[in-house]
Amino acid sequence: MITFIDNLINKIKFKKSHAVVGLDPDFNNFPAYFKNNAYSLTEIGEAILEFNIKIIDAICDLVPAIKPQIAFYERYGLDGINAFVKTVNYGKKKGLIVIEDAKRNDIGSTATAYSEGHIGRVEINGKSVPVFDVDAITVNPYLGSDGIVPFLQDVKNYGKGIFVLVKTSNKSSIELQDIKINDEDGKTYKLYEVVAKLVDNWGKTVKGKSGYSSVGAVVGATFPTDARILRKLMPKTYFLVPGFGIQGGKAEDVISSFNEDGLGALINASRSVIYAYQFDEKFNEVQFADAARDAVLKMNKEINQELKKRQLLIW
Amino acid sequence: MITFIDNLINKIKFKKSHAVVGLDPDFNNFPAYFKNNAYSLTEIGEAILEFNIKIIDAICDLVPAIKPQIAFYERYGLDGINAFVKTVNYGKKKGLIVIEDAKRNDIGSTATAYSEGHIGRVEINGKSVPVFDVDAITVNPYLGSDGIVPFLQDVKNYGKGIFVLVKTSNKSSIELQDIKINDEDGKTYKLYEVVAKLVDNWGKTVKGKSGYSSVGAVVGATFPTDARILRKLMPKTYFLVPGFGIQGGKAEDVISSFNEDGLGALINASRSVIYAYQFDEKFNEVQFADAARDAVLKMNKEINQELKKRQLLIW
Repeated sequence: MITFIDNLINKIKFKKSHAVVGLDPDFNNFPAYFKNNAYSLTEIGEAILEFNIKIIDAICDLVPAIKPQIAFYERYGLDGINAFVKTVNYGKKKGLIVIEDAKRNDIGSTATAYSEGHIGRVEINGKSVPVFDVDAITVNPYLGSDGIVPFLQDVKNYGKGIFVLVKTSNKSSIELQDIKINDEDGKTYKLYEVVAKLVDNWGKTVKGKSGYSSVGAVVGATFPTDARILRKLMPKTYFLVPGFGIQGGKAEDVISSFNEDGLGALINASRSVIYAYQFDEKFNEVQFADAARDAVLKMNKEINQELKKRQLLIW
Repeated sequence: MITFIDNLINKIKFKKSHAVVGLDPDFNNFPAYFKNNAYSLTEIGEAILEFNIKIIDAICDLVPAIKPQIAFYERYGLDGINAFVKTVNYGKKKGLIVIEDAKRNDIGSTATAYSEGHIGRVEINGKSVPVFDVDAITVNPYLGSDGIVPFLQDVKNYGKGIFVLVKTSNKSSIELQDIKINDEDGKTYKLYEVVAKLVDNWGKTVKGKSGYSSVGAVVGATFPTDARILRKLMPKTYFLVPGFGIQGGKAEDVISSFNEDGLGALINASRSVIYAYQFDEKFNEVQFADAARDAVLKMNKEINQELKKRQLLIW
């Protein structure tokens, strides 16, 4: 069985794209004709699925992966989560890797429950059955190893991946993640560096043939200097890089998340792609999927050009 | 409208109980007659609901609250989450406060989406509709204020609560939460103390008439010395204390989570209550609900006796 990370890298090379599209269906930002016709949670769920299918159809040949953010589905309860399940399945059918942005975290048998449901299998009277069956899931490290290790068995058994939050893209990430610590030799470092070392270690047992690990890290595009430090601490860790686009990250900012081999970073854009129709006069709201395609083409071009400039483009 | 925290305290006094029962339906631990009759996710979902209803019926007059851990429902996909929704509604109908253990965390509009779905309302064509509508939810602080503040509006508007992870009950919580930091005056403190100060601050705007805040903290029973430090740093914060029972926390260990007023701590037990039939020869598996009731009676007695010993019992 191919590992998650090797599968991801193959698709990155095949699509010639380091981009991932975040499917964060904030109904408030949807074209009016969706909003005006939804009078129940069920109808909102259906609208989200229709919206996502059109986005996926428009971008599936351009990117290796999609990243649905489950908060935007949970918001609408069972109907929303039903749309999530169908979006995951549709994305996989279209050849996309699906990274669930869920930031789950718990310990022991509870972490195992999350892992089994999202990336593993559950037992039903002796039969082993997949449930959400996403390719990878984001997880939060605040609980330490007890919260991460239970996922590693499913990563191994089913060719799945996890991305651990290390340094997030938001402003207040500094409140805890950037806290300064002095080690015994009097050297100062930051909390996210401690997390990085843990991630590097957790990832050692689940490396692919590419040399990269199926335990990745979330490293925000909005802090390129931090990314440079983290790149060195986690040389074999793939970075999932949020914050490109609306949050302010530019192509030049994400370069520090790449390795010398021109790999190592998957750059996420959500709102700047799926609501691109709001930012580009060329498109009206009915053309939201065309606008998304256009935004992804631009994003791929920007990232690839920046990599080329630094002789890091591998195609 | 009564605040979450005042409502909780009223129910604590009325039931004469500081206990909360964790509804963590790990199907592997269910009585055999449940397991042998479930051949699909739907049947597992139905079995979980039936199990929960029997537990709730058996304990609803003895405790102020239940704490369903959503991981054990997500594990079984839509069918599991459907059982979660119905469990929440049944618990509320039986007069219990429902604290969803979800440890959610994200930033900005994504955090808002979680908040709206779990404790707030969503807009459907101008109508404001509750979705999961639990009374309170646990959240993870690793992303800083950006991940917490979006919940506070719904806490205020709808009389809801949140419990922020500060110091968790598991062994590896020390890896990050106990990291030592030197401040500018050369004083050493731990990361969880930084989180505690943030929690104290976040809670200031959502205090009830009791003086306590609707922003609570998760503080593990397995580290009583840490709880003592945290009690001082967060005097008006209610502690949700996991780790009682199977994880090793005893009545004497949880006392440090209480304030001088005999309030301030809600002690959780999950497996030691709902699977009590496994640990007590008096009961067979068909009597799992009776065993749970018995375990809660014992737990209430132990905690109340320990409080009495220290002249902290308020009834």
